[in-house]
Amino acid sequence: MSAGEYLPGEARIGFVGLGIMGEPMARNLVAAGYSVTVHNRSREAVDRLVAAGAKPASGPAAAAADADAVIVMLPDAPDVRAVVLGENGVASTLREGGMLIDMSTISAGATRELAETLAQQGVRMLDAPVSGGQKGAVDAALTIMVGGDEADFARAQPIFAALGTRITLIGESGAGQVAKAANQIVVAGTIQAVAEALTLAERSGVDPAQVREALLGGLAGSKILEVHGQRMLDASFDPGFKAKLHHKDLGIALEAGTEAGVALSTTALVRQFLGSLIASGDGDADHSALARVVERLSGDAGERGAS
Amino acid sequence: MSAGEYLPGEARIGFVGLGIMGEPMARNLVAAGYSVTVHNRSREAVDRLVAAGAKPASGPAAAAADADAVIVMLPDAPDVRAVVLGENGVASTLREGGMLIDMSTISAGATRELAETLAQQGVRMLDAPVSGGQKGAVDAALTIMVGGDEADFARAQPIFAALGTRITLIGESGAGQVAKAANQIVVAGTIQAVAEALTLAERSGVDPAQVREALLGGLAGSKILEVHGQRMLDASFDPGFKAKLHHKDLGIALEAGTEAGVALSTTALVRQFLGSLIASGDGDADHSALARVVERLSGDAGERGAS
Repeated sequence: MSAGEYLPGEARIGFVGLGIMGEPMARNLVAAGYSVTVHNRSREAVDRLVAAGAKPASGPAAAAADADAVIVMLPDAPDVRAVVLGENGVASTLREGGMLIDMSTISAGATRELAETLAQQGVRMLDAPVSGGQKGAVDAALTIMVGGDEADFARAQPIFAALGTRITLIGESGAGQVAKAANQIVVAGTIQAVAEALTLAERSGVDPAQVREALLGGLAGSKILEVHGQRMLDASFDPGFKAKLHHKDLGIALEAGTEAGVALSTTALVRQFLGSLIASGDGDADHSALARVVERLSGDAGERGAS
Repeated sequence: MSAGEYLPGEARIGFVGLGIMGEPMARNLVAAGYSVTVHNRSREAVDRLVAAGAKPASGPAAAAADADAVIVMLPDAPDVRAVVLGENGVASTLREGGMLIDMSTISAGATRELAETLAQQGVRMLDAPVSGGQKGAVDAALTIMVGGDEADFARAQPIFAALGTRITLIGESGAGQVAKAANQIVVAGTIQAVAEALTLAERSGVDPAQVREALLGGLAGSKILEVHGQRMLDASFDPGFKAKLHHKDLGIALEAGTEAGVALSTTALVRQFLGSLIASGDGDADHSALARVVERLSGDAGERGAS
């Protein structure tokens, strides 16, 4: 296996982190025909995966013991480090020539450090953060942005194909995380711009639905205007992608900006507004609830979407 | 004519303002079969239009004297007021039942005032600002956002059909200008977000072309990422749409925000960056040159696109 592709029916995959994204992803790997051994801190998701055909593991080390490749899908860098390098971690059992595929969103710097540490024990690593949200995870339609070696990317390709539709090797280790940071910057900035535009229309006495419709086909058109613009019109802020997670991701982006010496001016401002959502109890709302911040900054006339 | 549609071969149109947008628009009206009488401050554009089949007029009053409808396409509200209400202006000759179609980008407030003034002398008015740039004007592929009465909109529909492809009656007088302001807010905010994202990638040692490509099909995908993202990669900032005009348009948007009581936080910031382009001699560059501001704020490493 070590030189070839990780094919369904052949490769054994360990999977750690069965959250809102990880659970449907692991399920899609089982459905594709992989032998999948799963671990999660809370037990319910493990039971559901076992019912779907996965094997349970008592911890990260056990999930990695017989695996060709281990996927982790965790909240942030400290979680990834603990699961991989900690006591009873993935690195304690994953065999030489095995591969860690980190699909979490963490910083490029933390990624490179981890990849170097693992390389010393002969373990390969790809960073492969995703976008597309829970729906993309369920539908196996994720965008996957990969950093690492070309040969490792080629080996992992069948795994990615079972999880997403748009799979790009961006560059070397960490490059997938840089692309993900870029993605989160663009998404946040566009949501904020759409929120300001539609709020201006509504407060000016003009139907924001008409404005959205008129703008969709032109230069202002975007997936965000289509999807999140509609959520703002409906004042329907069920996630989707939680404001507090986008706040975390922009923290990673700003850290990357500091490291690379890039002034991320509007990104920093929008992150403050996501922080404002968290402070006012809306951290679990969809990130399109940035429209609520624009409303609040604009006084109480209208109060579209206030719960 | 007064109750029916303004049809090619029947309706006589006056056209004032043959700039980068107005000239190709007037040309498309001639090509569609309208009788078009044109006026412009400088003579060259008039001569070109006359060669294409239009009639020349000595001033706005002369352009409007025999017209069923007069189109104006001018830089800002003071120009529109002067051309319409000034000495030798459109309003001094346009007949009762005639129509002014203002396709300039001005404020909704100035629009409503002008519409009320004209209504007192029995002249109808539509505000019909456009997006799509010079290319959209040449290709008769503009997005046209219209404010005014439904009956007036119906009469002008054949004229709009000769100029654009996406034509929407947004609402009452001024609503077209509100939609245009919303459009300019979304476009500016998205360009800035793309500029921050691609600069972060490049300064992090990751190929921004790969990042753009990976993001295009996902949630971060937009016309701006496609078109302006490519301009940033090429460091090709020929307009397109000039930074100084976008700066002007966001001034109108912020004014509208003040009137409506809406906090346009990121819009205000991006307008400052467009102002910074003007201050550094890049006011005539395409608005995607916002990437240069991000570069400058980030020190001199890289200096992508500095001329």
